[in-house]
Amino acid sequence: MYRSHTCGELRLADAEKEVVLTGWVQKSRKLGGGITFVDLRDRYGVTQLAFYRDLDADLYEEANKLGREFVLQVTGTVKERSSKNNNIATGDIEIHVAKLLILNKSDVPPFTIEDETDGGDDIRMKYRYLDLRRNPVRKNLELRHRIAFETRNYLDKQHFLEVETPVLIGSTPEGARDFVVPSRMNPGEFYALPQSPQLFKQLLMVSGFDRYFQIVKCFRDEDLRADRQPEFTQIDCEMSFVEQEDVLNIFEGLVKHLFKVVKGIDIPELPRMTYAHAMKYYGSDKPDTRFGMEFVEIKDLTAGKNFGVFDDAEYVGAICAPNAASYTRKQLDELTNFVKRPQIGAKGLIYVRYETDGTLRSSVDKFYTPVDLAKWAERCNAKPGDLILILSGETEKTQKQLCELRLEVGDRLGLRDKDTFNCLWVIDFPLLEKDEELGRFFAKHHPFTSPKKEDIEYLDSDPGVVRANAYDMVINGVEVGGGSVRIHNSDLQEKMFEVLGFTPEKAQAQFGFLMNAFKYGAPPHAGLAFGLDRLVSLFAGLDSIRDCIAFPKNNSGRDVMIDAPSQIDIEQLKELCIEVKKSE
Amino acid sequence: MYRSHTCGELRLADAEKEVVLTGWVQKSRKLGGGITFVDLRDRYGVTQLAFYRDLDADLYEEANKLGREFVLQVTGTVKERSSKNNNIATGDIEIHVAKLLILNKSDVPPFTIEDETDGGDDIRMKYRYLDLRRNPVRKNLELRHRIAFETRNYLDKQHFLEVETPVLIGSTPEGARDFVVPSRMNPGEFYALPQSPQLFKQLLMVSGFDRYFQIVKCFRDEDLRADRQPEFTQIDCEMSFVEQEDVLNIFEGLVKHLFKVVKGIDIPELPRMTYAHAMKYYGSDKPDTRFGMEFVEIKDLTAGKNFGVFDDAEYVGAICAPNAASYTRKQLDELTNFVKRPQIGAKGLIYVRYETDGTLRSSVDKFYTPVDLAKWAERCNAKPGDLILILSGETEKTQKQLCELRLEVGDRLGLRDKDTFNCLWVIDFPLLEKDEELGRFFAKHHPFTSPKKEDIEYLDSDPGVVRANAYDMVINGVEVGGGSVRIHNSDLQEKMFEVLGFTPEKAQAQFGFLMNAFKYGAPPHAGLAFGLDRLVSLFAGLDSIRDCIAFPKNNSGRDVMIDAPSQIDIEQLKELCIEVKKSE
Repeated sequence: MYRSHTCGELRLADAEKEVVLTGWVQKSRKLGGGITFVDLRDRYGVTQLAFYRDLDADLYEEANKLGREFVLQVTGTVKERSSKNNNIATGDIEIHVAKLLILNKSDVPPFTIEDETDGGDDIRMKYRYLDLRRNPVRKNLELRHRIAFETRNYLDKQHFLEVETPVLIGSTPEGARDFVVPSRMNPGEFYALPQSPQLFKQLLMVSGFDRYFQIVKCFRDEDLRADRQPEFTQIDCEMSFVEQEDVLNIFEGLVKHLFKVVKGIDIPELPRMTYAHAMKYYGSDKPDTRFGMEFVEIKDLTAGKNFGVFDDAEYVGAICAPNAASYTRKQLDELTNFVKRPQIGAKGLIYVRYETDGTLRSSVDKFYTPVDLAKWAERCNAKPGDLILILSGETEKTQKQLCELRLEVGDRLGLRDKDTFNCLWVIDFPLLEKDEELGRFFAKHHPFTSPKKEDIEYLDSDPGVVRANAYDMVINGVEVGGGSVRIHNSDLQEKMFEVLGFTPEKAQAQFGFLMNAFKYGAPPHAGLAFGLDRLVSLFAGLDSIRDCIAFPKNNSGRDVMIDAPSQIDIEQLKELCIEVKKSE
Repeated sequence: MYRSHTCGELRLADAEKEVVLTGWVQKSRKLGGGITFVDLRDRYGVTQLAFYRDLDADLYEEANKLGREFVLQVTGTVKERSSKNNNIATGDIEIHVAKLLILNKSDVPPFTIEDETDGGDDIRMKYRYLDLRRNPVRKNLELRHRIAFETRNYLDKQHFLEVETPVLIGSTPEGARDFVVPSRMNPGEFYALPQSPQLFKQLLMVSGFDRYFQIVKCFRDEDLRADRQPEFTQIDCEMSFVEQEDVLNIFEGLVKHLFKVVKGIDIPELPRMTYAHAMKYYGSDKPDTRFGMEFVEIKDLTAGKNFGVFDDAEYVGAICAPNAASYTRKQLDELTNFVKRPQIGAKGLIYVRYETDGTLRSSVDKFYTPVDLAKWAERCNAKPGDLILILSGETEKTQKQLCELRLEVGDRLGLRDKDTFNCLWVIDFPLLEKDEELGRFFAKHHPFTSPKKEDIEYLDSDPGVVRANAYDMVINGVEVGGGSVRIHNSDLQEKMFEVLGFTPEKAQAQFGFLMNAFKYGAPPHAGLAFGLDRLVSLFAGLDSIRDCIAFPKNNSGRDVMIDAPSQIDIEQLKELCIEVKKSE
């Protein structure tokens, strides 16, 4: 071992010990009077090295030549500092160095290795191995390790077995976004990389594994958004002989465990919100419940006053922003511009200021009297000082716009604190989703998702109202996980395929393999998957999942550090029996 | 929850409890006198269900119609059995069933779901999800879970961080056996799947992660042998500021921990055997040390007696098989045929029987007197009753043959017990390996492996004798892990490339990326990787790694269950900008 202690370890109690430390030069400060301090950094902390010209002039000179990020081994004595630093754990001591060995030099790094660096995104990604030296980046990955580790601890205690499912699997007709892998041994044939281990985990239930989980890489070859990566990690789970309630309880327990052991936070029992409720009051199936401002429908209160915008609207919805009546004209204009952005697409924004003196002023005073406005305010539970914001139009579209507005106002009012965590289950999702263009229904989750028993009778007459035994866990407006109870009864499964417009032949072609397996005694089963990347970024208070991935890819799916993907050798292509054929 | 208890849980103390069980029909026995017993199985065990015609004739009739592998939910009362079964944990009780619900029927499975099944390899692989229902197969995967889990426990306690490295990486010129993945977003470009995370783990050391591990899938597109799979799992580790000794100690600790918690076995301190010693006394760098029979060189004792075979041989080596003097002519012929098989390639086998009466009889009595033979026996430490077996020829080749013979005889003498575990480190591997045809040296491990300090001076003059700081862990003759101290000094690295015949340009092209990273302060580092599949199969006493993988591929790299790889849609190929071009 090159060291006796780490750079985060020494305390006043260690004073006068002879120690050997290793690490990187964080910075060095040449003070007057022949004293030089060097901060030595490793994963565990920073320790101050002290060099005194009076004690050893040669060593002092050497120390003055050390560059940033040099790798050192120093031998010395732990001494109490004269001026202590309370900001770091080792701040009471310094090392009076007796021996200095440069283990490796370093070129000047292309950006500073500090919590707040001067490096832009691109350069930091290119030199990701240096970016990873920075405390905040490393801490995200330490957090990721801890979350994965504690997930395994919890699930192991609940008798889950971690089973590795294959990475090289078969491509399916619906797998348009599969990554494929040519097989050298089977010319002209391809493996696919899994978008999820769904098939295999259901097979493991058929195998009687009872409780399965896996922290597993999954792959999707599609255009990437800020929070998507071509490879991502799932906490994938499945259980047998359980109902929805059991799955919710077990995984509520997981999340409580993680918050407790990783962040020291006690999470209260997770509320369960129906999909219908979430859409009606938040305009989203992943409501951010850290703050109120639920939607209030006021269409009936606005009718018949000759305000065409509201009269013609299918839906008029309000949110009440607490203590925002003091918003300036400029602030209100910003909000109006926000909702009018093409991504949101509202035509305009109506507001009512509930002044602290009790008066009500709105942008539609021409049409509505203070008595009208008071009725709105009453329904919104508004108090003096609040600001009511109103959007109108086609119901679903307007609710989505109102959802965006609510989140924006929540941000502006500081109601979306990253250190506050609000978790809930969203349940009772619709089983099917109608493609209005094609005029037919698709499975919202997947075709093996079980409908609610009491809704099965509507599968033929009114498929759109059938609810599924499907559930999502939502934290702070982020869907961190979701799953469903699966169909294990073959009659019901056939019925589902019929509703989805599959001929028996087509069903067999696409799903025959799993259906055949189900012939040999499939148990009732249910499961879910959490997105580990999202979970970690939420715990870390990050905006993007990229910052909790050691070596992420950019929005074009490129690893700019190693420059992948890249062209490959013509010989290698030949061996794989493929040719590149760029379409012109 | 469909059940109140599992099928492995109920004991005599639970008698008279009302319980609900779920599981699969293992078998049913219709006894005389209106009694039917059904064994209900789940992952946790088997519980006997009892149906009595006298108590409920309808239920009794229903029970008689249950087929193998039907999925049941039963409600009933726990009763003490009249005739107990000591072979199973629930053998003291049975369930008097009051309610029977068939959760799912089952077709008759294509083979019996028993510890000893009637299904051949092919059918079991095709229906792997049924094969996984069998106890021995499931137990292997439970063991795998436990080993992975305890590996993480141990390494976490040692401050290792599990960091996920990318699966979609870049192909390298030496990556002839890389699986490649066309990128849709980057037409004409390919990712590669990692053969190991070597590059990334060394980068993480440059990043100051200090202690990294990962249980990770790796990929190799090559012809498969019985114990190879195109995707396999490594316990991959790397540490900074350590020397070889530190790595050996940490991972000796890991293996001791695994044996202790998983198998309840205390493993003594691991002996360290040099590569030179292993080759000289076992003819292998992965000696099976569960038994003795080390090689004894007797060339000097055999010389000058006109026995041309020995006189002309570079090497004459013996092994002494304890208590095998009683081997019959037939048994000796079998051994002779064994060594003469083309895979082994010896010309013949000489033996000396040290009879229990003290006389010595050999197959070369024409050339050697009993006094000669007594000298051989003495050097072999042979005792009356032992059998000495001798091979001769070119040194290296003969040692390999003698190695095979030793293992075969060890098998025949029952000295290779699967429940005995003998672990050791093999160290001081040669740094370089000479390709005799090409007349040049190659890195035995990889070009970043560090030579021993005291051998560096021979890098130019006699590269073949230079030893590496490289090490393998060997258990029962199986290499379960290995690694090395890496070069972190750029001068030494350049020297290595020179010895390996790389021009600076070629070195830059192939390894430039890592070399550049090393410019920014690489710490001294070292690591190793264990093959999880091999480790588990060893713990399970299996001959093949396939049996400890949930969904393995066959020798052609095919998953016969899901029939992958397979052809893919022409449209999909077009989108990926590739074409299949089978060479004729």
